[in-house]
Amino acid sequence: MNISQRAQNIQESPIRKLTAIANAAKKRGTTVYHLNIGQPDIHTPEVFYQKIYDYEEKVLSYGPSDGLEALKVAMVNYFAFFEIILEPKNIVIATGGSEAISFAFNAVGDPGDEVIVSEPFYTNYSGYASQCGLKIVPVTAKAENGFHLPAISEFEQKLSPRTRAVLLCSPNNPTGTVYTPDELRAIGDFARKHDLFLIADEVYKEFTYDGKVHFSVLQLSGLEDRVIVVDSISKRYSACGARIGAVISRNESVMKGITKFAQARLCPPTLEQVGAIGAYELPHDYFKEVMAEYQKRRDILYSILTSRQEIILQKPEGAFYIMAKLPIADGEIFARWLLNEFSDNNETVMIAPGEGFYKTPGRGKDEVRLAYVIETPKLERAARLLLLALDQFKG
Amino acid sequence: MNISQRAQNIQESPIRKLTAIANAAKKRGTTVYHLNIGQPDIHTPEVFYQKIYDYEEKVLSYGPSDGLEALKVAMVNYFAFFEIILEPKNIVIATGGSEAISFAFNAVGDPGDEVIVSEPFYTNYSGYASQCGLKIVPVTAKAENGFHLPAISEFEQKLSPRTRAVLLCSPNNPTGTVYTPDELRAIGDFARKHDLFLIADEVYKEFTYDGKVHFSVLQLSGLEDRVIVVDSISKRYSACGARIGAVISRNESVMKGITKFAQARLCPPTLEQVGAIGAYELPHDYFKEVMAEYQKRRDILYSILTSRQEIILQKPEGAFYIMAKLPIADGEIFARWLLNEFSDNNETVMIAPGEGFYKTPGRGKDEVRLAYVIETPKLERAARLLLLALDQFKG
Repeated sequence: MNISQRAQNIQESPIRKLTAIANAAKKRGTTVYHLNIGQPDIHTPEVFYQKIYDYEEKVLSYGPSDGLEALKVAMVNYFAFFEIILEPKNIVIATGGSEAISFAFNAVGDPGDEVIVSEPFYTNYSGYASQCGLKIVPVTAKAENGFHLPAISEFEQKLSPRTRAVLLCSPNNPTGTVYTPDELRAIGDFARKHDLFLIADEVYKEFTYDGKVHFSVLQLSGLEDRVIVVDSISKRYSACGARIGAVISRNESVMKGITKFAQARLCPPTLEQVGAIGAYELPHDYFKEVMAEYQKRRDILYSILTSRQEIILQKPEGAFYIMAKLPIADGEIFARWLLNEFSDNNETVMIAPGEGFYKTPGRGKDEVRLAYVIETPKLERAARLLLLALDQFKG
Repeated sequence: MNISQRAQNIQESPIRKLTAIANAAKKRGTTVYHLNIGQPDIHTPEVFYQKIYDYEEKVLSYGPSDGLEALKVAMVNYFAFFEIILEPKNIVIATGGSEAISFAFNAVGDPGDEVIVSEPFYTNYSGYASQCGLKIVPVTAKAENGFHLPAISEFEQKLSPRTRAVLLCSPNNPTGTVYTPDELRAIGDFARKHDLFLIADEVYKEFTYDGKVHFSVLQLSGLEDRVIVVDSISKRYSACGARIGAVISRNESVMKGITKFAQARLCPPTLEQVGAIGAYELPHDYFKEVMAEYQKRRDILYSILTSRQEIILQKPEGAFYIMAKLPIADGEIFARWLLNEFSDNNETVMIAPGEGFYKTPGRGKDEVRLAYVIETPKLERAARLLLLALDQFKG
């Protein structure tokens, strides 16, 4: 039996495809430090679990397709802190940011339509696009510009009659770049001029360093009709396993269409939504300590990597990733070698090969994405293991 | 801004689209008995919640994309009770049966490909098919045959070069029909002869009455390569809000493709999987009491409805739905009237219009789907309200 072309062709997650060989290494007794995946080790807020313990319904029944009203209200209050004024009807709760992206793609385009994305980009966008039949058209951001958005002229070169949207991620996964209000205004003008949707993945909103403040596309005036934000609690409250995200838009047709997609899958998980309400009700101070911790981690990873001239990287402004260019020919071969062959004191490190974050063939082969989501002594050891491995791999 | 054609065209859930006017009726103080939705009132097993309370991880982290191994093992043991021998690698945990259907569709076909389905069918199949770009081709089952599968010749008439699969649901939603081993063998032969996948939605597996035993397509020999089963805990353990389902297949390419789709959305909800492990570890006796309760409910609803000659229906063999033909011209108008205009002693009843369960235009307009998932006194009252309403609606 032949399976579908899309099932054959869909890219394996470059972040997860090496999991099997990592597990094999662990079975051999090797400690594997995970720099490959954005799985924070920060404790999920206790109130998240407490809300679930307090849930008293005897029947775990279907919830509303668009999510629990109480969760939407908690989110509206959260956004008010940033002076972003929303109403519950501007929010549809999704099963993770993943489903939110898929909803947004399905709402803006039909099979064969195109979405312009600045590369490197979060690799799973490709997976959703392929399932929705959308084509991702990349414009390439450059490390030397801190991976900030390419010039508008480069976006214009990628326009076609099938272009339906521009997709951004800020703070950016995998580069850590935080786009400035000016560059967001420019891309907003571009969207308006060419009648495109502007989809923004803002799941790392809280993660900005050195006093930088995140500017949301929801704050762009005159673009209310075009803006669709993808959101999630996964990183914000260190609750990746909860699978609670959201689509946010003030465009009523978009929300109506997305609500129908949401009805088709019935509802997001109920208990995890209940937990999310507790998290969103935390005072905003909660993030201070978390941010200080991440900034410390970024500084450690950045300082160890920049001790080697042959490693090229920018200091991330936000999120918790570094996109680094290494003195290697192929990140995937290196990543496999790290798990299969390398070890020091029975320890090794797992990284995400960079190629999967690019759409343009050949790009990113000498790059890797590193996540700084493990506690500092482990992160330091992982970074030094990486340097040691580079020495041996070269030799 | 124009949204996509698919967002404009996707059918609103006929089960959920009347929710807003039902809520309006409730706000006016009217009690609404829900016969429209398969939301059981059976308590979720305590062990489901207990397992979650006992979960001790401080970080609610990403799980494996294909689901927690312990949950797969618990499912393997559950199926062994039916002498269905599976391995964990034959199972991918999905976010509800909904996602399982979507995974199966994506795995068997590409946009433009066709799936033959016996109508009336679970209305959400249309929603997933439209998102995947698949075309549902209906063959019509007849009430007078107890909605059993149409003759194979009728399936053969629907074949095209784009046909990729046959999709069945047994026990059936919305008809309550349980297909016999013989008719499943026949449809299996049809799938083999024309090189098609055989997708079976068996989420109501445990719900069979009058001593009838469910026969699974997983028990068909010689079809291991073609069979894909869609499964869920929603009804089995009255945990609809958990969103835990599964795709089961012994075809390795199918499972490999589906695992890639699963990777794209990262993982199913962790805590709800933990709860599901507890449910699957219950001894099989658990179902005895549940089944007795449902059989009693079926008998009550069936006997009240058959007291009226003008209502045409078959006694359901399984699941917890009745598809009834009423002396009305349009089930949707009737359903709206029930919520907007009818009430008796400030009570009314909500039903699912039948048309949405058919693909062939015009069919099912005089039918409605009724779910018998509320406790017997309420169910009896709801059924009598329906008869009363029919009298007034006619007049």
